[in-house]
Amino acid sequence: MKNIAVLGSTGSIGRQTLEIARAFPQNINVFALAAGKNTTLLQQQISEFKPKLFYSEIAIQKRTQAKYCTLEEIAAHPEIDLVVVATAGKAGLNPTLAAIKAGKNVALANKEVLVMAGEIVVDEARRHKVEILPIDSEHSAIWQCLRGEKHGEIKKIILTASGGPFRDKSLADLAEVTPEEALAHPTWQMGTKVTIDSSTLMNKGMEVIEAHWLFDVSYSMIEVVVHPQSIVHSCVEFVDGSIKAQMSLPDMRLPIQCALSYPKRWGADYQTELDFKTIGSLNFEMPDLKKFPALRLAIEAGERGGTYPAVLSAADEVAVELFLQKKIGFLDIPKVLEETVEQHDCISKPSLDDILAADMWARETIYSKYE
Amino acid sequence: MKNIAVLGSTGSIGRQTLEIARAFPQNINVFALAAGKNTTLLQQQISEFKPKLFYSEIAIQKRTQAKYCTLEEIAAHPEIDLVVVATAGKAGLNPTLAAIKAGKNVALANKEVLVMAGEIVVDEARRHKVEILPIDSEHSAIWQCLRGEKHGEIKKIILTASGGPFRDKSLADLAEVTPEEALAHPTWQMGTKVTIDSSTLMNKGMEVIEAHWLFDVSYSMIEVVVHPQSIVHSCVEFVDGSIKAQMSLPDMRLPIQCALSYPKRWGADYQTELDFKTIGSLNFEMPDLKKFPALRLAIEAGERGGTYPAVLSAADEVAVELFLQKKIGFLDIPKVLEETVEQHDCISKPSLDDILAADMWARETIYSKYE
Repeated sequence: MKNIAVLGSTGSIGRQTLEIARAFPQNINVFALAAGKNTTLLQQQISEFKPKLFYSEIAIQKRTQAKYCTLEEIAAHPEIDLVVVATAGKAGLNPTLAAIKAGKNVALANKEVLVMAGEIVVDEARRHKVEILPIDSEHSAIWQCLRGEKHGEIKKIILTASGGPFRDKSLADLAEVTPEEALAHPTWQMGTKVTIDSSTLMNKGMEVIEAHWLFDVSYSMIEVVVHPQSIVHSCVEFVDGSIKAQMSLPDMRLPIQCALSYPKRWGADYQTELDFKTIGSLNFEMPDLKKFPALRLAIEAGERGGTYPAVLSAADEVAVELFLQKKIGFLDIPKVLEETVEQHDCISKPSLDDILAADMWARETIYSKYE
Repeated sequence: MKNIAVLGSTGSIGRQTLEIARAFPQNINVFALAAGKNTTLLQQQISEFKPKLFYSEIAIQKRTQAKYCTLEEIAAHPEIDLVVVATAGKAGLNPTLAAIKAGKNVALANKEVLVMAGEIVVDEARRHKVEILPIDSEHSAIWQCLRGEKHGEIKKIILTASGGPFRDKSLADLAEVTPEEALAHPTWQMGTKVTIDSSTLMNKGMEVIEAHWLFDVSYSMIEVVVHPQSIVHSCVEFVDGSIKAQMSLPDMRLPIQCALSYPKRWGADYQTELDFKTIGSLNFEMPDLKKFPALRLAIEAGERGGTYPAVLSAADEVAVELFLQKKIGFLDIPKVLEETVEQHDCISKPSLDDILAADMWARETIYSKYE
């Protein structure tokens, strides 16, 4: 029986994590729940899963047996075996580090944690001998493909991208894209921010940075390939030319379950099985960096390192917000990112404070221009 | 440095094995070479690789420092680390067993060994704690996908088939197929027998039987899927619904090298790298058992067990020969197989002698009818 903490339990990944917990009551005990502003759902979850600890940004109304704790207290609690970090944005950073320092494995769904502070997080994980288990279809795929293989025998990581809903649009059409159109993702059910990031390919760019840190590979060893069906979730090529790929129907519950069940696999009957009889064909093509420059910007920020990725990530959060508020157009998102990165005075080998300061600087810089 | 014996060194797999040996002189030492009737090539190979031992069915002319030995003596020689069994037909059976009983890992390219005597071979391998390393793109793929995974967590094995050159032909057109047409395989360079077996899907049927023995899975857990591009070499589905696949361009040197380099992978620059930028699409469809009944017959023979698979395998050797001699038509091949299997008095739990007797019975039965 694993005691888990779910940080961000009312979000998309958090809710699906609890679905897995519900499906495997003999394997998983929900020891702590933490949420932001959706107290109605949090209260329902507390009633159902009866956690020992909880955190909420807003005071909850109903009385509960659960004890209120901060995110960091939950992450470091001695009875918790695995901390699922499914918070949004930089909120996941401190609890992730707290969990690692307390010697706990972290199941990480929050992209910003590694994008902003990859080096710090990975160094701490190494020092405390804990594993970061990716909750993300792409990184879970890579992680699964690497099982039983040697790090030194990796030649390349092939990160697949659905290409987003605008893959086939012209540059001129992209300028006219509305938030409503961008929120209609063809294959994955995800939160708002991730869905917009998928449509700009910024999401894939952040995943390249994550892959760099999670799997300790250089940027030149990571290739992005567009695969519209989202069935091949990513691949690893080895030095002998052999490629391993992981596939399934697009369903976030599988990578979540892989992280929760690790090092085992659990039989899942709630999942729709991928049927080769009906797949038909799987397609692959190169991403168009002219139409989707955010991917290039993210990889460049990753390669330049220091506080650049944190600035890019913060800038993207603001730019997406401005786009959703219809204050900027779809093609302005990468423009805002590029402008902000170019203005930034990078700190190499940054501390956590440097990173948070860079994040704040990026937000203020953009708001002062566009609000 | 690994000392290897190559049994069947002048055949397609044997020659490609020596290509790998040539590419990795620091890792592989060719300690023994054995061939059938192609003494010209064998003599060249002996001059180049200077093995300590050799076997030839026909006396060789040139003097050589190498010592003549039987196949079984070579297979069991104490200085040999790995025996590559790339012989054709039942010739591989005794040397494979000799190698296993001498405690040596066997790299197995000869399909008949496991089809005829899977239970005996696998039992001996278990008893002597040796591994059977598959040299075959499909089984190598499965083997690679299973690295780092648990046997009890396998849900299904998905064996891919190119579908052969006649995938799109009608049943009426199949009746008219000539040996020349059948020998023109679209994707793989292989020997004559394997090429015809690929066009009837008998080859895939034998691979199902091999997979059953190699990976200890029931027949109901093995699914055959047609994949014309021969890029996905096979897949494994796990209990949680996750599927792992192994891919590469069709090139037998990769599975050969995987077996030779095991448990490592060696950097190979002679190989053409699979480029996702240019793959375009990968297609999957179900095999048509009405047009290609040999696949069904092989799986049935495997399920029924005993001497049935040996009879089927021997019958196929004769039937392919009769087809190549234009004594029977393409659609007569599965008919001959079915007739022969139906006439056979099966022995369950057969000894090696029972298997060889069943093989002989099948050959005589067919020759007496068709010669």
